[in-house]
Amino acid sequence: MKKIEKLRIIPLGGLNEIGKNLTLIECGRDIIAIDCGLAFPNEEMPGVDYVIPDMQYIVKNVDRFRAVFLTHGHEDHIGGIPYLLKQINVPIYGTPLTLGIVENKLREFNLLKSAQLHVVHSGDVIKAGNMSVELIHVNHSIADAVAFAVHTPCGTIVHTGDFKIDVTPIHGQMIDLARFGELGKKGVLALLCESTNVERPGFAMSERKVGDSFDSIFRSAEKKRIIIATFASNVDRVQQIINTAIRFKRKVAVSGRSMVTVLEVARQLGYMEIPNGVLIDIEKVNKYPPEKIVIITTGSQGEPMSALYRMAYSDHKVVEITSSDLIVLSANAIPGNEKFVSRVVNELFRSGADVVYESYAGVHVSGHACQEEIKLMIGLVKPKFFIPIHGEYRHLKKNTQMAKTMGIPDSNIVLADIGNIIEVSSDSINVVGTVPSGITLVDGYGIGDVGNVVLRDRKHLSQDGLVVVAAVVDSTNRTLLTDPEILSRGFVYIKENASLMRDVRKLAVAVIEECAAENYEEWVYNVRTRLRDRLSKYIYEHTKRRPMILPVVKDL
Amino acid sequence: MKKIEKLRIIPLGGLNEIGKNLTLIECGRDIIAIDCGLAFPNEEMPGVDYVIPDMQYIVKNVDRFRAVFLTHGHEDHIGGIPYLLKQINVPIYGTPLTLGIVENKLREFNLLKSAQLHVVHSGDVIKAGNMSVELIHVNHSIADAVAFAVHTPCGTIVHTGDFKIDVTPIHGQMIDLARFGELGKKGVLALLCESTNVERPGFAMSERKVGDSFDSIFRSAEKKRIIIATFASNVDRVQQIINTAIRFKRKVAVSGRSMVTVLEVARQLGYMEIPNGVLIDIEKVNKYPPEKIVIITTGSQGEPMSALYRMAYSDHKVVEITSSDLIVLSANAIPGNEKFVSRVVNELFRSGADVVYESYAGVHVSGHACQEEIKLMIGLVKPKFFIPIHGEYRHLKKNTQMAKTMGIPDSNIVLADIGNIIEVSSDSINVVGTVPSGITLVDGYGIGDVGNVVLRDRKHLSQDGLVVVAAVVDSTNRTLLTDPEILSRGFVYIKENASLMRDVRKLAVAVIEECAAENYEEWVYNVRTRLRDRLSKYIYEHTKRRPMILPVVKDL
Repeated sequence: MKKIEKLRIIPLGGLNEIGKNLTLIECGRDIIAIDCGLAFPNEEMPGVDYVIPDMQYIVKNVDRFRAVFLTHGHEDHIGGIPYLLKQINVPIYGTPLTLGIVENKLREFNLLKSAQLHVVHSGDVIKAGNMSVELIHVNHSIADAVAFAVHTPCGTIVHTGDFKIDVTPIHGQMIDLARFGELGKKGVLALLCESTNVERPGFAMSERKVGDSFDSIFRSAEKKRIIIATFASNVDRVQQIINTAIRFKRKVAVSGRSMVTVLEVARQLGYMEIPNGVLIDIEKVNKYPPEKIVIITTGSQGEPMSALYRMAYSDHKVVEITSSDLIVLSANAIPGNEKFVSRVVNELFRSGADVVYESYAGVHVSGHACQEEIKLMIGLVKPKFFIPIHGEYRHLKKNTQMAKTMGIPDSNIVLADIGNIIEVSSDSINVVGTVPSGITLVDGYGIGDVGNVVLRDRKHLSQDGLVVVAAVVDSTNRTLLTDPEILSRGFVYIKENASLMRDVRKLAVAVIEECAAENYEEWVYNVRTRLRDRLSKYIYEHTKRRPMILPVVKDL
Repeated sequence: MKKIEKLRIIPLGGLNEIGKNLTLIECGRDIIAIDCGLAFPNEEMPGVDYVIPDMQYIVKNVDRFRAVFLTHGHEDHIGGIPYLLKQINVPIYGTPLTLGIVENKLREFNLLKSAQLHVVHSGDVIKAGNMSVELIHVNHSIADAVAFAVHTPCGTIVHTGDFKIDVTPIHGQMIDLARFGELGKKGVLALLCESTNVERPGFAMSERKVGDSFDSIFRSAEKKRIIIATFASNVDRVQQIINTAIRFKRKVAVSGRSMVTVLEVARQLGYMEIPNGVLIDIEKVNKYPPEKIVIITTGSQGEPMSALYRMAYSDHKVVEITSSDLIVLSANAIPGNEKFVSRVVNELFRSGADVVYESYAGVHVSGHACQEEIKLMIGLVKPKFFIPIHGEYRHLKKNTQMAKTMGIPDSNIVLADIGNIIEVSSDSINVVGTVPSGITLVDGYGIGDVGNVVLRDRKHLSQDGLVVVAAVVDSTNRTLLTDPEILSRGFVYIKENASLMRDVRKLAVAVIEECAAENYEEWVYNVRTRLRDRLSKYIYEHTKRRPMILPVVKDL
């Protein structure tokens, strides 16, 4: 048998973008994936629900595909799983909490029964074809996160997943720096390192810092009810809130579907410790005086219809916000969500509540490694080759600078893109080609049936609306059979622009009459095109707007 | 004559919102306005160009209206002027730079000739009916900014405009704190104080800090061309870049229409000092080696089509970005612009350039007072009554806390809204009623012809697109005359959903045939409604999307 001298790393998501992380490692005939996430649509994708990676390369190579390994349970790492399993049924490996969250998701998609979920733990080594995948414990803003060392015939690849170094974590251990160091001493061929926080100097703060802030907030809250919004998946944060509540002799109620679900999973799996008698049903909070209650809720991103949003807009079935409430947003606004957060904060203030939300308040810390942590990781792993992952171009670029600072030569660093085939041998790294990659849009039941043309039309319609001109013609005699009708939506107030609409109709008649004198083969088609061009021009001249013009010409 | 014992303060913009600042002060028969700004549309206003205040109260009371006084030349303080002057021609007072910028704007609107512009200076006192308006020098991110003390028969009202305390400003003097103190000693009835930065503890940094950062950036730039993007109106920032360029023996070129315009105005009026031989034409930059050039440009917010954007996307007629460029974004992303900035930064990095942009780099300072500055202002002015202005609800609310900290009793603080009539006497402050207020949307040539219905339709169209069903019927015999046509835009890929579209057409035929059996008065209207309801339901069931359904039923 021929010795395998090269392996291929193929990122299908998470490079030059935030989210939908998915990386393939291909060695000989065997392929594995690390993570399979989704991304949220940006403002160029109106109406789209989710964005998932183009997975056709995996589907086409299903006979060579061994398994998906998950680093942790965040949507940008697991959210693509149901869409993959809809196409091919492959084994999924993850830690207990990660798979607990995946299970909930698969249940919704009716995929749980057929799914092959394998619970594994940090320290475990799983065989996948000619590779073996080792789980290494890391700290992150969700418990049970791991990095992977993929041992292959060509050498070891380390994939950090999302990580931070928290020397005083809430649950479990500090990141297993020792193991990264051991691997480094033995020799690591390539390091794939996350880049999310690479713009921030220094170290990320410990999760425990947030606990200190909670302490002083609870101390100063006096007679107030405390409502804390945070990410449902941040089990340690929720645990800290509960710990503080216990110290201050308050009962804890939980609101928000995902918060309830994650709490349940985390408790069952032993990731949270909640003494009996602490939790009460959300329906019962109003039976207690404000100073005896803490409510933990979703909605820290101001998401419409989240529990906090409903509270803010007096639409929550139990919780009514008053001046006896102190509300804490224990999260930073994710880029793009600033305005949602802002709106909810304004509304909460309007109800008379106190709101603690700024970064100055110390009620949130990031779960991603800052510059010094990334450098420390590079220093321990001492990889021959370095590939930054998880970030926009600017993040990846900055991360290459970290690697250079740590002594990795320029020629051993690859700033890649999704779809790139990165070929790695013991002494070279090169992008040698591409595989199909990109975005697949999920909109309602449709997966991939919304693309650029549809999005461009949505964008166009949202800018200046639309004008429909409907005419019934007799193409044989080239005559108009009845007065054309002009309809518009999202363009102008019709009532106040009656004369413009009248003029547009007159123009439509004139255009059709003009066409009557002409003898085109495709007469109706010609009328349509002519109507679109002339009306568009006329409307722009008179309004400086460009609504979509939709001529409907019926030939009787 | 009856003594005037009460005055009225009526904010028409800038409260519970960012932008379109406009405050009326009404004393007896006389009314004046402070500022007349615009706001930029938010994501709920697709296709809208600008948002201006509802000005009908001013227009209706034009016989009592004396003048508009401008605090400084930013769009959110002057951008509404052309729209006001289109309706009524009233005197405008402002400092030289402010009016210089207003002039350019009015020229574009063909309003310059008729406008009554009065240049005034800090220290000046202008009579306006029974009030006299005193200009007080303040620091801000644009030169020539002032606050106003409005002396009325009922007492003195101080309006801070936008301000910060910069003890080492670049051009001109430190804010005239002494005058605020004098007024405070004499007695100030009410203080209207800006709230933009009230969430930030401490003091805003001096503009001079940015100069230090420029210095170290220039020192480390070595053989590179330096391109700095900043706000055109920040004349002091531009001056600092030029000063640093001179020290490092580099020539300066300017790109971007607004940058060129403001630079010209500022130079003519003596707000900038540029020795001969420093500026070169942008067309000539390629004749110099990189290390001899600095380009100052617009586009620090990543605005599409700005000069920096065009450079990033290789669309600038002269400047091509390469690895010999060091680009500095000397600005923070204004909330809502983060993604635009991010995109441009990614693109610049992709061209091989170095980019300095984070807040860690010290290349930007804010022009707005932070908490300690606001408290200092309150402490000097010692107003009886306090009204926070310029901010969302959360900002205004926080600012009331500043006032309380400074000893102003709760009952003397009014957290108002636009349209409120705030009546102030020597011993009371109350909201006693409202005047018409709100937003007027500017879209192309249209002012106010886009409203909620139009925006709702635009939003709807952008989410799921539209389906047009066109049918020709004979309402007398209640029959369909030809096969209905189904058109869609922004909904799904038509080609890949041919069967869905076919089924929708079949359903349309069925619905119309069903109607044939029924004998409604408004038969065509009924067919339309029925088509909309049934198609909408069918499409939702099959796609989980809700495109707008537009039935076009022509009766022959």
